[in-house]
Amino acid sequence: MAIKNYIEKNRERFLEEWFRLLRIPSVSSQQEHKPDMQACAECWREILLSSGADKAEIIQTQGYPVVYAERIISPDAPTVLVYGHYDVMPPDPLELWKSDPFEPEIRDGYVWARGADDDKGQAMIQVKGFETALKEGLLACNVKFIIEGEEEIGSLSLESFCETHREMLKADVILVSDTSMVSEETLSLTTGLRGVAYWEIEVTGPNRDLHSGHFGGAVANPLNVLCKLLANLTNTDGRIAIPHFYDDVEELPGAEKEMLAQVPFDEEKYKQSIEVDALFGEKGYSTLERTGCRPAFDICGIWGGYTGEGAKTVLPSKAYAKVSCRLVPHQDADKIAGLLIDHLTKIAPASVKIKITYLHGGQAYVCPIDLPAYQIAEKALTIAFGKKPLAVRRGGSIPIIPTLEKVLGIKSVLMGFGLERNAIHSPNESFELERFYQGIEAVTEFYRLYK
Amino acid sequence: MAIKNYIEKNRERFLEEWFRLLRIPSVSSQQEHKPDMQACAECWREILLSSGADKAEIIQTQGYPVVYAERIISPDAPTVLVYGHYDVMPPDPLELWKSDPFEPEIRDGYVWARGADDDKGQAMIQVKGFETALKEGLLACNVKFIIEGEEEIGSLSLESFCETHREMLKADVILVSDTSMVSEETLSLTTGLRGVAYWEIEVTGPNRDLHSGHFGGAVANPLNVLCKLLANLTNTDGRIAIPHFYDDVEELPGAEKEMLAQVPFDEEKYKQSIEVDALFGEKGYSTLERTGCRPAFDICGIWGGYTGEGAKTVLPSKAYAKVSCRLVPHQDADKIAGLLIDHLTKIAPASVKIKITYLHGGQAYVCPIDLPAYQIAEKALTIAFGKKPLAVRRGGSIPIIPTLEKVLGIKSVLMGFGLERNAIHSPNESFELERFYQGIEAVTEFYRLYK
Repeated sequence: MAIKNYIEKNRERFLEEWFRLLRIPSVSSQQEHKPDMQACAECWREILLSSGADKAEIIQTQGYPVVYAERIISPDAPTVLVYGHYDVMPPDPLELWKSDPFEPEIRDGYVWARGADDDKGQAMIQVKGFETALKEGLLACNVKFIIEGEEEIGSLSLESFCETHREMLKADVILVSDTSMVSEETLSLTTGLRGVAYWEIEVTGPNRDLHSGHFGGAVANPLNVLCKLLANLTNTDGRIAIPHFYDDVEELPGAEKEMLAQVPFDEEKYKQSIEVDALFGEKGYSTLERTGCRPAFDICGIWGGYTGEGAKTVLPSKAYAKVSCRLVPHQDADKIAGLLIDHLTKIAPASVKIKITYLHGGQAYVCPIDLPAYQIAEKALTIAFGKKPLAVRRGGSIPIIPTLEKVLGIKSVLMGFGLERNAIHSPNESFELERFYQGIEAVTEFYRLYK
Repeated sequence: MAIKNYIEKNRERFLEEWFRLLRIPSVSSQQEHKPDMQACAECWREILLSSGADKAEIIQTQGYPVVYAERIISPDAPTVLVYGHYDVMPPDPLELWKSDPFEPEIRDGYVWARGADDDKGQAMIQVKGFETALKEGLLACNVKFIIEGEEEIGSLSLESFCETHREMLKADVILVSDTSMVSEETLSLTTGLRGVAYWEIEVTGPNRDLHSGHFGGAVANPLNVLCKLLANLTNTDGRIAIPHFYDDVEELPGAEKEMLAQVPFDEEKYKQSIEVDALFGEKGYSTLERTGCRPAFDICGIWGGYTGEGAKTVLPSKAYAKVSCRLVPHQDADKIAGLLIDHLTKIAPASVKIKITYLHGGQAYVCPIDLPAYQIAEKALTIAFGKKPLAVRRGGSIPIIPTLEKVLGIKSVLMGFGLERNAIHSPNESFELERFYQGIEAVTEFYRLYK
């Protein structure tokens, strides 16, 4: 009851601190938001200190700084390293937001703002769980925090940051709240994450936009060429048609396949929620397998030629696309990046020039369910939510998780509280208020039990 | 000598009047330029009056108004109807212009501005040729002018305008300066024009942008789908893969094919001028055949998803494209429009919704070379430029030309003075000063000889 009481007493203050963060447009992919990134890091530093950290500091990197904080209760206690990020995705398309993405609003029991879930809301759950455990005298472990500013652009500086600060970051387990559960009814802990590789493609045809009447039919149109190139990267069975792409893909072990099949999944409801008449994916796999443990190819953006009002007949000079692959355990992002570049370079016709830039990549990740910290997380959730969570592999990527394992040699437990309807990366991102407080309770339990 | 002298004496004034027109951003496809469209029509009316028209007026239509003017010298003289247009293409991409598109600048003997050639420069040649013939007492025919404001958006109102004003527009031939010659060395008159059909395509997948990690691989990505749909509209031989598309396409008659083969064409120079390493088009046809008398499919614009700086992993809700087909004599634009819509609707997968809008279309056109007015145009050019022009079919479309023939029953002679390097529809459109004055001389000769 002490935990619930403390949270109840501090409801308003927790909310205010969370809103302070949400009001800062810390979009890491856009240069114009550089000052906001600094402001957001500073805001986190202050919140961590006032939440009970012994020390909290902003540590510079080659890119955006990392906020580091710690509370050491005893050299003999185990240590949890909490990972979170203070950067957010761009909010566009802005016209689809029902309220300002950077002015959080409470409607229908939800907080609406960019970052409400990913990851300001969820990282806040971690910090307030820590505060609650500490202030109620329940904290059983040392806690360290790293909150970085480059998660949405591939955590470019965090690997070398971890290498430089290996000693400071020593811990027994990494705890991360940056994932979603299957549904409100089906609680889950994420035990697998897909990797990602992301490229930008530029196709150049003639040296200037041409009149399509004078040149059309005789000069290769870079938009025609780009569409053909991208179309050929997948086949009609929904498989990726890059040679050797599947070489390292492991079929999901039978036991895990069975467990995944037990996750309640209502295909009709899923289709209705996104308003599509039919789903499409790799032949021979279920939707949860397709998103959880099979690779995917997506064109994330495409542009070129005339895109204004009305009609303009033009044979454009340039065509662009941003494309990504979701990867699964054992696929190496850098190797896949090379495969796509080699393949496109090889099949591009002589009538155009093609330039492919590998923007970033991250490995896939698996968390074993017999890990002690995993089992404590399972227990903590069961106490706070009254239900035992399932272990499931999910489709999202947090490239830094496998990197942290590689550099620090520590496994991560993915204790996420999001739901699909929170629409992260989309307009009208949200987080349910009661879920926020329930999440804090679960995290407090974790800190009480992890000893 | 009288003609040359008159032009020489009035060089500066001709230029000033031309520049007045070029300074008005009369972009018909963009609503914000509506006032400029009115201003440009008024400017033409004043110029036509001061150039010697008996009357000049602005006649309203359902869309942008038509400027009409006439000079009737005798009921017994033959009548020439001059067609031109005062609207221009959008100037974007703006950043590629070396000077303001709507502030004409003289550099290296050229005038640089949007519309310098298409069609303000060329229509001005007609008007100043008329003035010169009139003022020097050489005018042998009646002259009527229609200068419309919707050529670049498909001449939406001109057909009903012509139907309404059939009597007023009575003439023996239509004279149009809105085409280009083969090259500075190889003068030409255009005897064929391609038609055009233009569509906008909207593909809708999920009802909102989705996180490509959570949904990628299980939900059809509208950008992936759009690229596949567009890629499938052409095959690897450069032919259009829409069923029945070629049904009405007539092979070029042997005699014309031979004539086209005589047009000097330096493929290396052509490739160098647009900086491509290889050309691409329909198998079995030369470049001049491909652009002059074979159909073509071009994606004129495409957009969707994240197109900003850096990387954003997203599975977008919408994908868009603007596409056009160039058509050849006997193909009916509306029929082709239906074929594409039916085909795409049929092959679009159930996982997306597709909406195809036919924005506009125009028929192809052929001018017989035994037409008296054609032969006088040939003679006029020979006198002014010292060389006989070749008769060639060209790839551009002026949809109103076949419409004028249909409604008024009059053939058009296409006496154009442009060159490929004038870059119409592209950044840095230009027109050579000396060519402008030489064109005026040729047109004056036409008005002297046409009786």
